[in-house]
Amino acid sequence: MKDVTVGIDIGGTNTKFGIVDSEGQVIYQSKLPTQRHADFKDYIKELGTAIRQGLAQTKENYNIQGIGVGAPNANYFRGTIEHAPNLVWKGIIPIVEIIQKDFNVPVIITNDANAAAMGEMIYGNAKGMRDFIMITLGTGLGSGIVSNGELIYGFEGFAAELGHVTVNPNGRHCGCGKVGCLETYVSATGIKRTVYKLLADYIEESELRGISFHDLSTKMITEAALRGDLVAKAAFEYTGKILGSKLADSVAHTNPEAIFIFGGLSLAGDLIFTPTKKYLEANLMPIYKNKVKVLPSGLQNQSAPILGASSLVVDYLNKKSSVSI
Amino acid sequence: MKDVTVGIDIGGTNTKFGIVDSEGQVIYQSKLPTQRHADFKDYIKELGTAIRQGLAQTKENYNIQGIGVGAPNANYFRGTIEHAPNLVWKGIIPIVEIIQKDFNVPVIITNDANAAAMGEMIYGNAKGMRDFIMITLGTGLGSGIVSNGELIYGFEGFAAELGHVTVNPNGRHCGCGKVGCLETYVSATGIKRTVYKLLADYIEESELRGISFHDLSTKMITEAALRGDLVAKAAFEYTGKILGSKLADSVAHTNPEAIFIFGGLSLAGDLIFTPTKKYLEANLMPIYKNKVKVLPSGLQNQSAPILGASSLVVDYLNKKSSVSI
Repeated sequence: MKDVTVGIDIGGTNTKFGIVDSEGQVIYQSKLPTQRHADFKDYIKELGTAIRQGLAQTKENYNIQGIGVGAPNANYFRGTIEHAPNLVWKGIIPIVEIIQKDFNVPVIITNDANAAAMGEMIYGNAKGMRDFIMITLGTGLGSGIVSNGELIYGFEGFAAELGHVTVNPNGRHCGCGKVGCLETYVSATGIKRTVYKLLADYIEESELRGISFHDLSTKMITEAALRGDLVAKAAFEYTGKILGSKLADSVAHTNPEAIFIFGGLSLAGDLIFTPTKKYLEANLMPIYKNKVKVLPSGLQNQSAPILGASSLVVDYLNKKSSVSI
Repeated sequence: MKDVTVGIDIGGTNTKFGIVDSEGQVIYQSKLPTQRHADFKDYIKELGTAIRQGLAQTKENYNIQGIGVGAPNANYFRGTIEHAPNLVWKGIIPIVEIIQKDFNVPVIITNDANAAAMGEMIYGNAKGMRDFIMITLGTGLGSGIVSNGELIYGFEGFAAELGHVTVNPNGRHCGCGKVGCLETYVSATGIKRTVYKLLADYIEESELRGISFHDLSTKMITEAALRGDLVAKAAFEYTGKILGSKLADSVAHTNPEAIFIFGGLSLAGDLIFTPTKKYLEANLMPIYKNKVKVLPSGLQNQSAPILGASSLVVDYLNKKSSVSI
């Protein structure tokens, strides 16, 4: 019997799940459509069957030590998914209780950015670190903060919403209802908005002038910048400037050893890392200068969300064993 | 034999110290000038003698469980005071090692704002809370952040420098070398700068027009505001606006149950609390709205620094006993 953990990542479109061994190898993974069942119980039934089929397909006998779940609007303390706008199930879903009944093992849930932070600490580039910040750049900006070796959840489980710190109180409108939030500047959507602002303000020619807002993607902006397109390059510089200067405030909160950047925009490499580091340093108070690393995630692949979810179980078991010693 | 802790608060002018019983009562306290001895060892010798005399003056036999120290530029991890600009001893002082040798009990040191946060949790209005932020308003703005029931120290022990988050990158010059830091707006000095800015910008008569910058105090501004002075009132409104709007960013980091405000400016009561709460709420993202309490410290008295320092020992002993169970 080999010990394994199960990681489940619930996205708006697909649910990815996988079986992870004690070395952090994903020995089985698959996915199913998240929205096929309007009734949450039918969804969980299909997911449970799929996990058991996955286990059966591998040749060994496995002992599941626990199940970790990354999901939007997940509440770690209550074990619930609450009012997730991108999922079909409305209201409050007691997902931990339901999966626990089915599998009779510890089940831990948190939001995807927290899971990414934990995954980085257990399996990625934050191994051995006890104080760091994870920034995930997707459609929005997610984040997870680890201090003293623990994820910060806060009083109600809503800590680390760095996508919604204020860059400019008279700035861009945000989906959260506020104005000027960081993610309206720094995210896949944010950099598109910046490109459109630059196209409006300046007269330079740009290959991006021929692309509609809906069609424009981070990949297109990255490729244009690499070809020397002035607007695309300026958009990355501006994005890094905003990110770096706001991260200086985050450093003044938790004094991290490193800040990791994960997700679509981070794949642009130096285009985003160079201005981010430059403006972070420019805005740090002297005691922090030249001490905080800005690094790419070590888990930039298809399995990252599964490893992030699985790592919640590993962390849970580590903590449990250290307390009982 | 009664168990007690010793709290020592090292300030630029005076060192306050006291003996605290297990109920949080200060059963003896005294002070001595911090700067009398150019040699740190002579200072510690005098302090040690004074503590032992204090113990002797009380009638019971006491068992010192530990000594807590709050000091400027203190490093929790290294047990040192490092390059403190306001103290006569230059370089790095291994204070914990020196006191430990003398008293042979656990010695814990941290900066005064962290000690204030711990004091609030052990003896004050944060009893039972595991997630809160302490803001101390003196000459500058200090802070301590508690998450998951623990002080956040960060990678190098420099976490929670909220006085140096950026309000305006083109704003006021700060003693730290940066521009636009929060403490240049929100502190005893900050509100004086705001008064002078208002006197420069507007033509309204104000009783503060007759007072030099050096002579102006928080107390004078408070009393003028209470008498209806327009400039003094506007200065408080502006100070609370800046504090509240920046605290919204702090809430997005650690999702605290409460924010405590301690020190000189906080004694102005509603003059500072009302605008702080108003602009905090206005800048919070919806999930946090109407959930974060803004409260005065429960330790607004002469003994607060001693209780803060003493609480470091209580926390240390609590953690030690919970791990060994």
